[in-house]
Amino acid sequence: MLKSYIENIEKWREEFSFYVPIKVRFSDTDMYGHLNNTVPIVYFEQARIDFFNHLGLMEDWTDQDVNNIPVVADIQCDYLKQVYFNEPLKVYAKIAKIGSSSVDLHYLGVDHLEQICFTGRGTIVQINQNNGKSASWTEKQLEKLSGSKK
Amino acid sequence: MLKSYIENIEKWREEFSFYVPIKVRFSDTDMYGHLNNTVPIVYFEQARIDFFNHLGLMEDWTDQDVNNIPVVADIQCDYLKQVYFNEPLKVYAKIAKIGSSSVDLHYLGVDHLEQICFTGRGTIVQINQNNGKSASWTEKQLEKLSGSKK
Amino acid sequence: MLKSYIENIEKWREEFSFYVPIKVRFSDTDMYGHLNNTVPIVYFEQARIDFFNHLGLMEDWTDQDVNNIPVVADIQCDYLKQVYFNEPLKVYAKIAKIGSSSVDLHYLGVDHLEQICFTGRGTIVQINQNNGKSASWTEKQLEKLSGSKK
Amino acid sequence: MLKSYIENIEKWREEFSFYVPIKVRFSDTDMYGHLNNTVPIVYFEQARIDFFNHLGLMEDWTDQDVNNIPVVADIQCDYLKQVYFNEPLKVYAKIAKIGSSSVDLHYLGVDHLEQICFTGRGTIVQINQNNGKSASWTEKQLEKLSGSKK
Repeated sequence: MLKSYIENIEKWREEFSFYVPIKVRFSDTDMYGHLNNTVPIVYFEQARIDFFNHLGLMEDWTDQDVNNIPVVADIQCDYLKQVYFNEPLKVYAKIAKIGSSSVDLHYLGVDHLEQICFTGRGTIVQINQNNGKSASWTEKQLEKLSGSKK
Repeated sequence: MLKSYIENIEKWREEFSFYVPIKVRFSDTDMYGHLNNTVPIVYFEQARIDFFNHLGLMEDWTDQDVNNIPVVADIQCDYLKQVYFNEPLKVYAKIAKIGSSSVDLHYLGVDHLEQICFTGRGTIVQINQNNGKSASWTEKQLEKLSGSKK
Repeated sequence: MLKSYIENIEKWREEFSFYVPIKVRFSDTDMYGHLNNTVPIVYFEQARIDFFNHLGLMEDWTDQDVNNIPVVADIQCDYLKQVYFNEPLKVYAKIAKIGSSSVDLHYLGVDHLEQICFTGRGTIVQINQNNGKSASWTEKQLEKLSGSKK
Repeated sequence: MLKSYIENIEKWREEFSFYVPIKVRFSDTDMYGHLNNTVPIVYFEQARIDFFNHLGLMEDWTDQDVNNIPVVADIQCDYLKQVYFNEPLKVYAKIAKIGSSSVDLHYLGVDHLEQICFTGRGTIVQINQNNGKSASWTEKQLEKLSGSKK
């Protein structure tokens, strides 16, 4: 069952290199005994922020003079395999497309057997908190973003 | 900016009638001062479960003899307006499409001025916990599901 | 089993009047099928903030000129009765003791039969974000705090 | 400011050896810019479960024939130092006292400079899900529990 944002699953998967190790917290489960469906979105956020940090972008978003922050415009997640308490996961993030003030990220969550548990995507927009409007990437930011793109 | 799952926003919006009132918890916010982006997914879950309960479906999913449960196959959320602590929201849910063992739900979150804060959609599949496979809707379940569809 | 912060349970209980209605979210449960033990602490926070808001104190903590915020110094919770999904709870808060820059709150969570599910207490300290030190209550704040005390 | 459950802070601290590394998630923060006060309770749970797992106790609580589970009777947490996003923490757990069907655990959270951020304690009771009553430790369980005690 191929998702609209995945053309070729093997190729798509190969393009990931950055990931964060995630351990499923007990409080991440729900009464159906598995990982609650809302939690992979939390993992995506964790992977995204660590990824941005890795690219050197987080410093742009804590500079109070500039006052720009990244905002989630949309997110989606496809659940392929149930996940249980204590499972060690890897959650990957990669850049799929760079816009003028936005970036599309793709996500991949795998278990310890490298089986896909969930996939996802979402657009992040840089906005300026002073006026609430989108703020175009600077040259330097584009370099950071492009550098990571294969 | 029309989402792929919304053809006509006025018509789409009119088809909602069921909603749950939601109050943004303090711990739902994050260090950017607004509602954390992972939380509307929690609100969708709340709206969905209350909606299923309203349709009389939850009793099918707590019957330990049958052992069927609803599982989230995918979810997506579009964030249109920032939400802040203490805002009273209404989160609507409606049925968009009924499959043989699945159902597509759409979601709409509005603030106290009836302004759209976020929209979303997702597919729920009924699976049987004994064999892990999808379980077709029974006649009775289809009645419950159809009854709610305009 | 009387808790150290409760001398006389009937008297203690009578002193509560302010409460917030809480509905247990599905994602508040865990794989043991009941309310996860970390969540009543979230409910305490909700009750506390609504209580402070009710007393007119929240406006003091969003005034960016003064830059004071309330900080949780400690919290404790005693779990007396398991809580399940969808249960409508009332979570009460009251002031137990007022210090020079702090206040002790007590908490009580009951189910729809008015049975006690959990109790708790904790100290809140007002600190100034500019210097990180505790900030004494002003006359006006003391009035607001005392007004609520029976 | 010594807590009631800590007689001598140096001695108390030395008795810990088991810990879990914790990374503060972005969604663990709140609009005051720091770790939300409800989250250390989540970290305690994580430390506790990993600790029980380390002691070999978790297998007793997933055996569906016996149907015993550990239940949190009470928890408390003292917050000594604000924690911020992305900080790497260590959260320690140790056994403080063993009862007939319960065990008291103490907790310690430190930052990367080994500075204390929060401390805590709480009682866990083993209950039987069939009758809802407390279930005494078996000989084997007591061995597991004692083995860890210095």
